[in-house]
Amino acid sequence: MTNISLKDLAKELNLSVSTVSRALRDSHEISPDTKEKVLTLAKKLNYQPNPYARSLRKQKSKTIAVVIPEIANNFFSLAINGIESIAQENDYHVLIYLTHEDYEKELSIINHLSSGRVDGVLVSISSATNDIRHLEELHRKDIPVVFFDRISDNINTIKVTTDDYNSGYKATNHLIDQGCKRIAFLSISSKLSIGVKRMEGYKDALKDRGINVEEKLIVHTEGGPEETHNKIKQLLTDPNRPDGLFASVEKLAIASYHCCHELNLSIPKDVKIISFSNLETASLLNPSLTTITQPAFEIGKEAARVLFKGLDKHKTFLLNKSIILDSRLIERESTAK
Amino acid sequence: MTNISLKDLAKELNLSVSTVSRALRDSHEISPDTKEKVLTLAKKLNYQPNPYARSLRKQKSKTIAVVIPEIANNFFSLAINGIESIAQENDYHVLIYLTHEDYEKELSIINHLSSGRVDGVLVSISSATNDIRHLEELHRKDIPVVFFDRISDNINTIKVTTDDYNSGYKATNHLIDQGCKRIAFLSISSKLSIGVKRMEGYKDALKDRGINVEEKLIVHTEGGPEETHNKIKQLLTDPNRPDGLFASVEKLAIASYHCCHELNLSIPKDVKIISFSNLETASLLNPSLTTITQPAFEIGKEAARVLFKGLDKHKTFLLNKSIILDSRLIERESTAK
Repeated sequence: MTNISLKDLAKELNLSVSTVSRALRDSHEISPDTKEKVLTLAKKLNYQPNPYARSLRKQKSKTIAVVIPEIANNFFSLAINGIESIAQENDYHVLIYLTHEDYEKELSIINHLSSGRVDGVLVSISSATNDIRHLEELHRKDIPVVFFDRISDNINTIKVTTDDYNSGYKATNHLIDQGCKRIAFLSISSKLSIGVKRMEGYKDALKDRGINVEEKLIVHTEGGPEETHNKIKQLLTDPNRPDGLFASVEKLAIASYHCCHELNLSIPKDVKIISFSNLETASLLNPSLTTITQPAFEIGKEAARVLFKGLDKHKTFLLNKSIILDSRLIERESTAK
Repeated sequence: MTNISLKDLAKELNLSVSTVSRALRDSHEISPDTKEKVLTLAKKLNYQPNPYARSLRKQKSKTIAVVIPEIANNFFSLAINGIESIAQENDYHVLIYLTHEDYEKELSIINHLSSGRVDGVLVSISSATNDIRHLEELHRKDIPVVFFDRISDNINTIKVTTDDYNSGYKATNHLIDQGCKRIAFLSISSKLSIGVKRMEGYKDALKDRGINVEEKLIVHTEGGPEETHNKIKQLLTDPNRPDGLFASVEKLAIASYHCCHELNLSIPKDVKIISFSNLETASLLNPSLTTITQPAFEIGKEAARVLFKGLDKHKTFLLNKSIILDSRLIERESTAK
């Protein structure tokens, strides 16, 4: 079966192409009777306007893109569900692009988007991204950009995050309250906004409780799963090993559990663990995991909501602004006394 | 900053638009010197061809779409990683669309794609999909379609799955070997290919071991998390409750764990549980979960590989064919004697 064109419809109805086109656009220059005839035939023959031709004309793709670092992470899957709920209300499609924590991949995706494939973009940047010129370029091209979770402070647009600093402070304080004296901080990047802010909270909490910050207890694992596993194992086999671990992202908590099981270290007796996490199985783990849980669904919803406001009005609506939604500390067995 | 057009380049270089266009397409009619001049300026001014205009001309979007029911599922996140690895080799972008197990949503996405936004589509159908005319339509429009995991037998194209029947048979046999006498089968749909085949394996294994198939032990929970929770709870509070649960998808195992914890039923003493699952935390659960683990990454890779072969050659390459990759039973504490 071939595609039905405007020309086919016009020929069949003995009308001009321009009349058919205007009828389909519900133009006031066309009579109700003619519109009715055109629409009936278009429906019968399953006529579909060519999206590229239509986009050239209307400059609206009715799609937004979500650019995220990874998919096997419950924060992002919940955030995407939040984004989709708002997109659906606006009758928009959501395209998800994965950067796999790779700067080159992110660059290629953003360049691909910058030529106008979508009406707006929601971004959570990769852990390997230092240079954000590609994102500034997108923003300059009048394609609205809103950041969520992993942000850059260097662009004038809206950022939706959780209270990373406070949550880092709270998590560290909780470990101290539970009796930890040597607390390690685990992150996937020394530059990423979320890692930096959570670490600042960690450092300040230690200082406020009179504990020295030791650089060797701060571990950034920027490589793959194997490097991560080795670095955590090294930390836990040190004669002067930590008695508390604060994982700034979910996968580092899972890696820490695997290492403790392997080394026969008991959680929470030998090592207490707290993690930023939206893991659905947090309460089912052995032992159940104490988490800082982000309002992931709400963060996605809020980011999408402001993006659509920006699409409706104008980019200037998207001024530099931070929207911060609070996380919750949920105490479970992994940090019991 | 405004976009640089072909016309701008032509004016600046004092050449015709057609010469500039041909130079950018590396046409043999244009001299190397002219090409060099055009490319240098295009690079300097950051010229980007309009994707819609280019697509109208070339009819290649260099993107494929992956349409899946949900994102918070480790099978799909691993499969997507497999798909992306092949797409990257082919210099293609991957767009991910979520149907949220909703037939209307799937219909809308497929219609959106059928007007030519992408070069090919990988689909795992939603649990609510009975009517597959929208997918047949896509296929008829010369947009290659390959199914993975959740398939429909009614279209002449390639399907990549695991050995669902055998795995269902094996899982049920394992529960019987471990001492179970009353085994319930949990699924999210009575129609979905994977559910049906896994259930056939379950039924045949029971029959072969001389155990009656009881319809009340077969539970389809097609609603949301609350309905799922209630149905499993109802099953487990029956005076004649099952002593074994076979969850045909991961989220039903998680729901079953939550119900057992709530009802103070011990796993595996009171109830043994086995599940199809690619859960990263399967071995860390309390107790660790016995799984049928699909080669999810390989399934994604294989599905993408055959789709790209179809793009290269012609749709006719994508004849009706099933590619089946084996799953593994990984025994853990949740089914211990």
